[in-house]
Amino acid sequence: MKVGVFDSGIGGLTVVKSLLEHQLFEEIIYFGDTARVPYGSKDKNTIIRYAIEAVEFFKNFELDLIIVACNTVSAYALNEMKESATCPVMGVVEAGALATANAMNNKSSNILVIGTNATINSHAYENSLKEQGYSNIQAKATPLFVPLVEEEILDGAILNATLSHYFDSFKAPDALILGCTHFPIISSALSDYFGDKTLLIHSGDAIVEYLQRKFDFYKKYQNPKIEFFASENPEALRNIANKWLYEK
Amino acid sequence: MKVGVFDSGIGGLTVVKSLLEHQLFEEIIYFGDTARVPYGSKDKNTIIRYAIEAVEFFKNFELDLIIVACNTVSAYALNEMKESATCPVMGVVEAGALATANAMNNKSSNILVIGTNATINSHAYENSLKEQGYSNIQAKATPLFVPLVEEEILDGAILNATLSHYFDSFKAPDALILGCTHFPIISSALSDYFGDKTLLIHSGDAIVEYLQRKFDFYKKYQNPKIEFFASENPEALRNIANKWLYEK
Repeated sequence: MKVGVFDSGIGGLTVVKSLLEHQLFEEIIYFGDTARVPYGSKDKNTIIRYAIEAVEFFKNFELDLIIVACNTVSAYALNEMKESATCPVMGVVEAGALATANAMNNKSSNILVIGTNATINSHAYENSLKEQGYSNIQAKATPLFVPLVEEEILDGAILNATLSHYFDSFKAPDALILGCTHFPIISSALSDYFGDKTLLIHSGDAIVEYLQRKFDFYKKYQNPKIEFFASENPEALRNIANKWLYEK
Repeated sequence: MKVGVFDSGIGGLTVVKSLLEHQLFEEIIYFGDTARVPYGSKDKNTIIRYAIEAVEFFKNFELDLIIVACNTVSAYALNEMKESATCPVMGVVEAGALATANAMNNKSSNILVIGTNATINSHAYENSLKEQGYSNIQAKATPLFVPLVEEEILDGAILNATLSHYFDSFKAPDALILGCTHFPIISSALSDYFGDKTLLIHSGDAIVEYLQRKFDFYKKYQNPKIEFFASENPEALRNIANKWLYEK
């Protein structure tokens, strides 16, 4: 199977990392819209327009599947992408909400969703979880984590102060949905902050779980072909890909 | 005189504030490219392309002058804007460098420039100051200040930790060039950090000083007409303008 992975920038590489670890695909085409990142502060119509352009770009490749690795795009533009695409389109929000439901048997589990302003304002995770019977859901926009990850501030005083700033009034939840693909990069800081009892829901692992429920994967691909495309500065994207995907 | 003020987003409003305080213009047209902000992480060719598009937009108004309120655009695209425009174009980098030189008689004054990655990588301030005989210039990219200002984190633990992160190895300079129009919003935190002896160079005040040297302003305009344009979400821009320009 040949899969396209779409993200507004570099964050979706954390999803690619999960795909690689599980050796699901023969070929991966990654497209990051680095010229127009961040989407998380943009409005709905703009996000939809950019997402449809990404679908058009992917038509250059004969894909079997498109994975929307960006939570903001998944929250706002998944239906429009499905309408434009000639192959199935899957988003990290539906996958993440299902992974949360699979992990939390108790419908009154305390679930905290974090993400960009746009993702949180969409209420996409909350709506999906409410449909599945969960009632104890809180959501918090934590946009500063994005530039912190991009500046490689993954621990220390700034990150600790930012964690306190956002979460001072929250108890440790049973599940913390990392509703932005940048956030797995600071998962150990988040785990340290909330403690071991909080389960972190990671978009990449969630999408793998979702795929494995939907498709039969008969073969493992240890050395899939990967191509990286960026709307600006593809070299910078490839450098970060090398770092995030292949360094321990 | 009718002036156009161009910025990549909202930061240029700090320059508008200085223009209003000095009552220089009869009419101000502000254009923020909010759909494509931030420019500070984009590459040179993209910045030039967007800047020329802004010049084209301003051709809808019969302007006497365009002020480039964005340091990144001023650093990379001022000449190209001048070539495309049908009126004079002035940038905050040339103005800021001149204001610094006017304030620092001693050519060995210790000058620190801060800005986005793109502005610092351009070496525009350093080159301009070196041409004027200054030799003791340091520059530091401080990109995190931008999202902190946009999240209205203007004091407290996160900002203090970020100040230490960037400036731990710097002595208090004689002049600190605020090479990004977001930074005046945290000028009191910067002053507290470096102490009273450090002179802060503010793009808005610098451009006023520059204008007053270049032009004769015969009249004061207490109630200029201002129009705000944004490439996305103009309402959000107008809300921030109300806050930054008219609230104490």
